[in-house]
Amino acid sequence: MCEFHQGSHSHQTIDPAAAEMIEKANRENVETTWDRFEQQKPQCGFGDLGVCCRNCLQGPCRINPFGEPKEGICGADADLIVARNLLRTIVGGAASHVDHSYMALHCLKEAAEGKAPYALKGADKIKSVAAKLGIATQGKSDNALAQEIVRAALADFSSYSDEPMGWLKATVSPGLLEAWSKLGILPKNPDREIRTAMHQTSMGVDGSPINLLLSSLKMGLVDGYAGLQMGTDIQDILFGIPYPVKTEANLGVLSHDKVNVVVHGHMPEVSEKIVEWARKLEGEAIKAGAAGINVAGICCSGNEVLMRQGVPLAGNYLSQELAIITGAVELIVVDVQCFMPSLTKVAACYHTKVVTTTPIGQLPDAEYIPFTPENADVKAQETIRMAIAAYAKRDAAKVQIPTHKSEAWGGFSVETIVQALSKLDAANPLKPLIDNIVAGNVLGAVGVVGCNNVKAVQDQQTVEMVKDLLANNVLVVATGCTAHALAKYGFLTPAGAKKYAGEKLLAVLTAVGEAAGLGGPLPPVLHMGSCVDNSRIGDLLGALAGYLGVAIKDLPVAASAPELQHEKAVSIGTWAVALGVLTHVGVVPPVLGSPLVTKVLTGDLEGLTGGKFLVETDPHLAAEGMMAHIRAKRKALGI
Amino acid sequence: MCEFHQGSHSHQTIDPAAAEMIEKANRENVETTWDRFEQQKPQCGFGDLGVCCRNCLQGPCRINPFGEPKEGICGADADLIVARNLLRTIVGGAASHVDHSYMALHCLKEAAEGKAPYALKGADKIKSVAAKLGIATQGKSDNALAQEIVRAALADFSSYSDEPMGWLKATVSPGLLEAWSKLGILPKNPDREIRTAMHQTSMGVDGSPINLLLSSLKMGLVDGYAGLQMGTDIQDILFGIPYPVKTEANLGVLSHDKVNVVVHGHMPEVSEKIVEWARKLEGEAIKAGAAGINVAGICCSGNEVLMRQGVPLAGNYLSQELAIITGAVELIVVDVQCFMPSLTKVAACYHTKVVTTTPIGQLPDAEYIPFTPENADVKAQETIRMAIAAYAKRDAAKVQIPTHKSEAWGGFSVETIVQALSKLDAANPLKPLIDNIVAGNVLGAVGVVGCNNVKAVQDQQTVEMVKDLLANNVLVVATGCTAHALAKYGFLTPAGAKKYAGEKLLAVLTAVGEAAGLGGPLPPVLHMGSCVDNSRIGDLLGALAGYLGVAIKDLPVAASAPELQHEKAVSIGTWAVALGVLTHVGVVPPVLGSPLVTKVLTGDLEGLTGGKFLVETDPHLAAEGMMAHIRAKRKALGI
Repeated sequence: MCEFHQGSHSHQTIDPAAAEMIEKANRENVETTWDRFEQQKPQCGFGDLGVCCRNCLQGPCRINPFGEPKEGICGADADLIVARNLLRTIVGGAASHVDHSYMALHCLKEAAEGKAPYALKGADKIKSVAAKLGIATQGKSDNALAQEIVRAALADFSSYSDEPMGWLKATVSPGLLEAWSKLGILPKNPDREIRTAMHQTSMGVDGSPINLLLSSLKMGLVDGYAGLQMGTDIQDILFGIPYPVKTEANLGVLSHDKVNVVVHGHMPEVSEKIVEWARKLEGEAIKAGAAGINVAGICCSGNEVLMRQGVPLAGNYLSQELAIITGAVELIVVDVQCFMPSLTKVAACYHTKVVTTTPIGQLPDAEYIPFTPENADVKAQETIRMAIAAYAKRDAAKVQIPTHKSEAWGGFSVETIVQALSKLDAANPLKPLIDNIVAGNVLGAVGVVGCNNVKAVQDQQTVEMVKDLLANNVLVVATGCTAHALAKYGFLTPAGAKKYAGEKLLAVLTAVGEAAGLGGPLPPVLHMGSCVDNSRIGDLLGALAGYLGVAIKDLPVAASAPELQHEKAVSIGTWAVALGVLTHVGVVPPVLGSPLVTKVLTGDLEGLTGGKFLVETDPHLAAEGMMAHIRAKRKALGI
Repeated sequence: MCEFHQGSHSHQTIDPAAAEMIEKANRENVETTWDRFEQQKPQCGFGDLGVCCRNCLQGPCRINPFGEPKEGICGADADLIVARNLLRTIVGGAASHVDHSYMALHCLKEAAEGKAPYALKGADKIKSVAAKLGIATQGKSDNALAQEIVRAALADFSSYSDEPMGWLKATVSPGLLEAWSKLGILPKNPDREIRTAMHQTSMGVDGSPINLLLSSLKMGLVDGYAGLQMGTDIQDILFGIPYPVKTEANLGVLSHDKVNVVVHGHMPEVSEKIVEWARKLEGEAIKAGAAGINVAGICCSGNEVLMRQGVPLAGNYLSQELAIITGAVELIVVDVQCFMPSLTKVAACYHTKVVTTTPIGQLPDAEYIPFTPENADVKAQETIRMAIAAYAKRDAAKVQIPTHKSEAWGGFSVETIVQALSKLDAANPLKPLIDNIVAGNVLGAVGVVGCNNVKAVQDQQTVEMVKDLLANNVLVVATGCTAHALAKYGFLTPAGAKKYAGEKLLAVLTAVGEAAGLGGPLPPVLHMGSCVDNSRIGDLLGALAGYLGVAIKDLPVAASAPELQHEKAVSIGTWAVALGVLTHVGVVPPVLGSPLVTKVLTGDLEGLTGGKFLVETDPHLAAEGMMAHIRAKRKALGI
């Protein structure tokens, strides 16, 4: 397990493996994202504040927060410009997730129709998703049901009516539906909402910041239900519901004597096939002189195959270049989202092949192997064989694999959590958790999610904040690159419970873990999956609120994206505040240039949805803020 | 008719009416867009060059065109950043037009089902659109056919398949379909394309500028067929195919003794109803002491009701505040696009009411009268009565209506042009035009379209360039705010033919005009409608190419947006270059920071589609450039 070294790279990362590789990069004259960050300083203050508008060819316009000009050429003021930019940011995030889920949907359709080589591994999920969509299941095969589910999803994407999205209605409580309906933020066909929001933010359309903020909330729901929820539901149907699995995390998982293949991006349709064929073609690697094939993951592709296949994590967002810099990666295969355009440049310094797989995610100097659901077996074999061939070119003189790695447990789907709890109370699985919350043994829960961001020291805010939360008996669930971060430092292990959890929380984790047959405590941080798997957190909150007969906004919980980077993180956060969750962000989003938008997002919003944003770059103050909120919610519940 | 005064506002406008109102605004201390433009100077050079990226929360990043940094934090270079920004700009434009056309579609659906008070006035268009969509017409009522047309349109918006958009396939030639298919730019379901493009441009997805440029072309086709073409087709079905109509243009059309109602925006669903009820409620205005009700138009709402109702034009984009500054406008009603958020601030200095009508186009200090197809009659009456009530509050001391106005002819749909030409050759209406082109009497044709942009002296580039074109016997067709501009200076009149057209062109215009019974020449600039009506230019090009048996790219034609401002203008221009048309832009779009993107758009593109962009801010050089292109095309055709 990593220690918290504070070496000469302490302003960049707290991860000793990353620090070692940054050192190596410097030595070998390989530019990394941190170098480019230094070159970008100082960053533009107008952009930072969100008061730069480029939405028409009269601009760019900029608002001076300290004087004139107060308006752009068309008359848009800071409030309007910030609100418009924010909505476009959220559209970028929501569109990314919706497109992701649509691709998964296409894969499911092809698979269910027998046209693509994917087994439907999530039989239980087929039943539960069919049930929530109101599809009768009796006497129907999994494939037939899956096809009905696909039709229900496509109905959302083709809807002309003003009815809210079916998938949303099938997922959330009537109380939430009513609250969102009153605010006028219930989304219809998600694609229509995306199109309309782009129109609404174009020059000379919406001049009302408040109206734009409401559309932002709506766009958050587009992400939450046509992106996250639909994506997770479908991926579970295709690849199975995750159950607990033990693996390892950090660059030390790369192998000295095996062919190292790194999966990076977000689509399990690609990464699952890479894992499958890496196993099947291991013999060819051995023939080629390697000890086998080692697949490791970066970003959410990593999380997907960790959750279901136990594949180790090589690193999170900021470590993607560093994996190549070990000199030990034969091939990195990407699909969509979060892969740096710099990858091919870094790879050119080593023997590493970079493979792109989708028509919209190209890199000029990469190998393009176009994956489709139908050809995935063929293309995965091609990719693995390319990696095996590259192994011969590995330059031992350039190889330096950090030794740092930590044990890590993943696979904590809602189904897993309920199953574990049901060992304590089979009839009412949520009761033991609720009882412990009521008794104060668990103060509350926080979902810690999101990315790395070069503006923050890698993993630092996440780790410091989570230490505070756990020490104060707050249960933490995590997803995305934040889960990677916590994995590296042992938070995802039973031992981590003993190290980090407060006494009362430890007792609860131990009771559950032992009842579930783990022979020790549950990890104090439960890895719930990839970024689209934030839907699992939403499901859990819905279940807890339903059990207690209260709204989500009344629960002693919070959410946090301590090191957010991608537009997707903003749209996910917007979904969370729409759900009624206090949502911390540890990197300041570009909204401070508008007093109105800032006030609404960090204050007034609470009166509308119960949720709001907490902007705080200090991890200890962030933990404090969330715990104050949790205590207030406890008080309001009378516990 | 206006003269080209060059007073103290010559750096702002060549329109004497506008200059007079800028003067009045200065006197009365009312801020206009030109004041705000001065305050914005100097504008950000990074934004101007397109090398500023705000697509994730690590940024803003900026590329230094003269040195370091050459890459953003993720590794994106200037080429990638510019290409990504450009695609998002085009998405903004395409989404605006697609949303516009979808709203028109909704109105048609409600009307055809008898749920909304709109007669289907375009019986001929119903037949021609049904025919191109392959819908059998025999024995079917207009309403039944319109419903089938609506279903065909909705099929495009709900399509899951990879088939290209039906509306596109029904409109363009097999040759274009094949060319676009080869380039991989044929759009499917337009909403899916918009969603995917937003995904493609989010952080860490597409790293290939060329791939992004191809997606930009595809997005241009999304605008061209799901925006422009579908919009025009449906609006013609609802409101009738335009036929020649005489009216007047410029602020002098405002009335001293009538209730002045200005329609502004883009949706004829709103402006047609305003015109209808202004006529019906004239008696109430007279009772209130006015001489009647005078409706005048700004931007494309103005063009729509000019084309079909002969409503005069008050002014183009940059004159919208100035109309209010006359002190004589009781009410300005807006729907979507191109209305400045400043309108309410300017209106507050006078008695003018500002009315918004759509949920996505709000202004905090305006009156919101929510129009729907179903309630349009009720809401239009409410609006007109609000205007009548405001008339009593008009302050005579503040009224100053410029005297400047010009006669202007509009209504030149393709159907009108063909009808006029058929007087010369009933069997082959296009033959006389083609023969005159072949004979060199008409050198070629240019579509001059687009906006005003405060960066350019209002109307100057348009007028100077068109003068050169006409003097050299180039026929000009115009739409949008450019048509307004040309209207103000008499280009849309028979007299304008004598004043501006070269000798050979004048002879042709005279022959056609006299044959068509106009008793004189056709105007040398044919007003073809609003910005969505650029589809009419596409139709005309398609017809000419089809008649000659060549591709559009081989025709001696060009397009120009001399004063473009809106994202829509960029997406329209992209459609034009995809069609194979040389397209001039007179305001430099934010692409010059990328040598690669600039080279492709202004050069290499020609090898792909036959079209490319000509960037030139000097109107005379722009005319020269287009004429050189036209001469080269003539030469290639052997004429």
